[in-house]
Amino acid sequence: MERIYTKDLKNKVGEKVLLKGHLHKVRDLGGLCFGVLRDKDGIVQITTEDKDSVLPKLKRESVIEVTGEVKICEKAPNGIEVYLNSVTCLVEVKEDLPFEIDKPEINANLDTILNFRSVSLRNIRNRSIFKIQHTILKAFREYFTKDGFTEINSSKLSAHATEGGADVFKVKYFDREAYLAQSPQFYKQMMVGVFEKVFETNFVYRAEQHNTSRHLNEYMSLDIEMGFINSVVDVMKAEEGFFKYAMEMLNKECKEDFERLKAEMPIIPESGIPMIKFSDAQKLLDEKYGQKCFGEKDLEPEHEKLLGEYAKNELKSDFIFVTHYPTIKRAMYTMVDSEDPEFTHSFDLLFKGLEITSGAQREHRYEELKKNMERKGLNPADFEDYLSSFKYGLPPHGGFGIGLERVTAQLLNITNVRETTLLPRDLDRLTP
Amino acid sequence: MERIYTKDLKNKVGEKVLLKGHLHKVRDLGGLCFGVLRDKDGIVQITTEDKDSVLPKLKRESVIEVTGEVKICEKAPNGIEVYLNSVTCLVEVKEDLPFEIDKPEINANLDTILNFRSVSLRNIRNRSIFKIQHTILKAFREYFTKDGFTEINSSKLSAHATEGGADVFKVKYFDREAYLAQSPQFYKQMMVGVFEKVFETNFVYRAEQHNTSRHLNEYMSLDIEMGFINSVVDVMKAEEGFFKYAMEMLNKECKEDFERLKAEMPIIPESGIPMIKFSDAQKLLDEKYGQKCFGEKDLEPEHEKLLGEYAKNELKSDFIFVTHYPTIKRAMYTMVDSEDPEFTHSFDLLFKGLEITSGAQREHRYEELKKNMERKGLNPADFEDYLSSFKYGLPPHGGFGIGLERVTAQLLNITNVRETTLLPRDLDRLTP
Repeated sequence: MERIYTKDLKNKVGEKVLLKGHLHKVRDLGGLCFGVLRDKDGIVQITTEDKDSVLPKLKRESVIEVTGEVKICEKAPNGIEVYLNSVTCLVEVKEDLPFEIDKPEINANLDTILNFRSVSLRNIRNRSIFKIQHTILKAFREYFTKDGFTEINSSKLSAHATEGGADVFKVKYFDREAYLAQSPQFYKQMMVGVFEKVFETNFVYRAEQHNTSRHLNEYMSLDIEMGFINSVVDVMKAEEGFFKYAMEMLNKECKEDFERLKAEMPIIPESGIPMIKFSDAQKLLDEKYGQKCFGEKDLEPEHEKLLGEYAKNELKSDFIFVTHYPTIKRAMYTMVDSEDPEFTHSFDLLFKGLEITSGAQREHRYEELKKNMERKGLNPADFEDYLSSFKYGLPPHGGFGIGLERVTAQLLNITNVRETTLLPRDLDRLTP
Repeated sequence: MERIYTKDLKNKVGEKVLLKGHLHKVRDLGGLCFGVLRDKDGIVQITTEDKDSVLPKLKRESVIEVTGEVKICEKAPNGIEVYLNSVTCLVEVKEDLPFEIDKPEINANLDTILNFRSVSLRNIRNRSIFKIQHTILKAFREYFTKDGFTEINSSKLSAHATEGGADVFKVKYFDREAYLAQSPQFYKQMMVGVFEKVFETNFVYRAEQHNTSRHLNEYMSLDIEMGFINSVVDVMKAEEGFFKYAMEMLNKECKEDFERLKAEMPIIPESGIPMIKFSDAQKLLDEKYGQKCFGEKDLEPEHEKLLGEYAKNELKSDFIFVTHYPTIKRAMYTMVDSEDPEFTHSFDLLFKGLEITSGAQREHRYEELKKNMERKGLNPADFEDYLSSFKYGLPPHGGFGIGLERVTAQLLNITNVRETTLLPRDLDRLTP
């Protein structure tokens, strides 16, 4: 008999089937025994009235092979059960689990959950988080590939600290020092001269000392950079296009995972993601929410949260672009607004009141870029390789980066980004 | 007028068009000037007889915008030219290039080519290498996603050296030490208990001291791991399926890139990739090629080369699986052949006589795995997190890893793997 998966059982009612998976749960009522088999897509109840069955004697998570008949059973999850013919234990488990994984939520603290990551992810709710994350990544690569972008994989080891030097991890590289990349920023810009439009999906590293629910020291950054843009709006439109595409794909491929996580698909209005200028956002925060922030150089997390509420309630959007951030707060490669040099052609994307993206048009003019560096107190001689591509001509360009774990968390209303990270790394955690 | 790309010009003969790109080449014959515009997909000749045109005065790589009429021109590359109406320089270039990039091959040594990576990749032959690499990656992810695999991204920073400790880069991680991952091996196995079938495409790091044409200290590893296999043959069949899929995709999407690189699609026989046992391969090498290697514990590069010739000439295949490597030479997680414990259920895949993959069925039984560790002189206590997932049940499983840069090099008959790496890192190179 050929093995089938639990997801295909609904078309097999009345038939004999072979299933393989883990024994997710087992309950012995004496003469009647219910088990739950979990395979890569879902779970199914397995039932036996055979008093000699080995089923009630097996420990949870045992790897089993089951044959039986598919029956309608209203009380079972999904309304289906497999009435046992035989159960074989392929791999025995001798120890009890560190916590129960068959409830919707694991009843343990986050540290314990993360310590036993290969067990806690067997919880089907937790597993669904990463099926959704896989789909976001797939959508990102597919959307930009279809739009003519080329994938690049730029080195994560460099002789120089990427953007000035703070918060960077040092590596002993044979007899010298190297640094872990904080972003693919320089490389993706350099590659605009080669491929015109590029994307990258890779880990980046930030040696930040704070241990908040929003920060990780290693995270997956989804980056694009595109040439021959007319303005930063082209970059924002590219990001909007991606999110629409991703949501369609999630809707089609991850419905069950969303239901399991009690999450809803976010809303982007017909007219697109709304945009608000940084200084207008401050005015709004002051006038509508009594914040007194006008003139400050950045938005506080609380401000972002309020802007998220405003976008949701007034503009019927889960996303809002904040544009034209102050020059003083953006990196030297950001294009300054020539009509108002205190501000830049930059944006953040807030999703449900949290920043998930920074983006901008970049300064592509060699001389201007050098001046920008000097204004920020940086020495152009330290950026020779980077500047070299500008010397040989780069078109007007811009791009953005999205934190994958953070966007996953916001999408699923999960407050701690560690839960949406397969193997999180922070100030205290380097294992498993 | 809307911008079009050079690849679409063949459908626009007789029409007026707007193109944007770099000035790849320019030749002034006095009163007649030929230029070549390069955009993200290709090149096209631009011609003017206007004595006042700015075209002959522009430096190569200037970023330009061109309008003109599309004409048939037999002498031009692709048989098409754009007869100039106007040319505008969007970004000026003031310096000469470090080397010419408009010839099929760049006339400079590899070190110089790599030092000016953002320039040397503008050569259309070099650029094609990475369009092909993008497509291999796309094929890998698409093939395994369609087959029900889930993408994982496992941390590259760990408190322990992955597989015993040699050749590993150390990172200063706040007040302690971390190690860069040499492979996702342990994590992908742990995730078999969660997702059953997983893949990963990420950088891995090897602190190997040798500087050969085949080795890099940072490379992209394409990994899979799959549960509920019947034997290692299932793993080899999965790899074969991927290569067939990739070749079809390359044939469809990268024909022009292959022509530019004078490379041909490799051959897999109708009957599949041939397999030969390690010890039979040694016998063959001794008898047919006079090698005297029978009984040795590994194959030398020269042996792999000869086996590649054998596969090509006798079996009409560019690939050959060598199976059943000696236990002493394979990692502790490899499944030992219980009928002949000196050998393992493992394989290498040779592609045109070079190893591009190592794979195996893994030891999934907790007690046996601990014994394997002890036999190799390792302390199971050092592998607690890894062993924990076996304690809670993992099905029989196996997998493999492919070096992306190496497979790209072999595919395109390029001898040095640095040429198929966007930004190579080796003993001497940490820039750009």
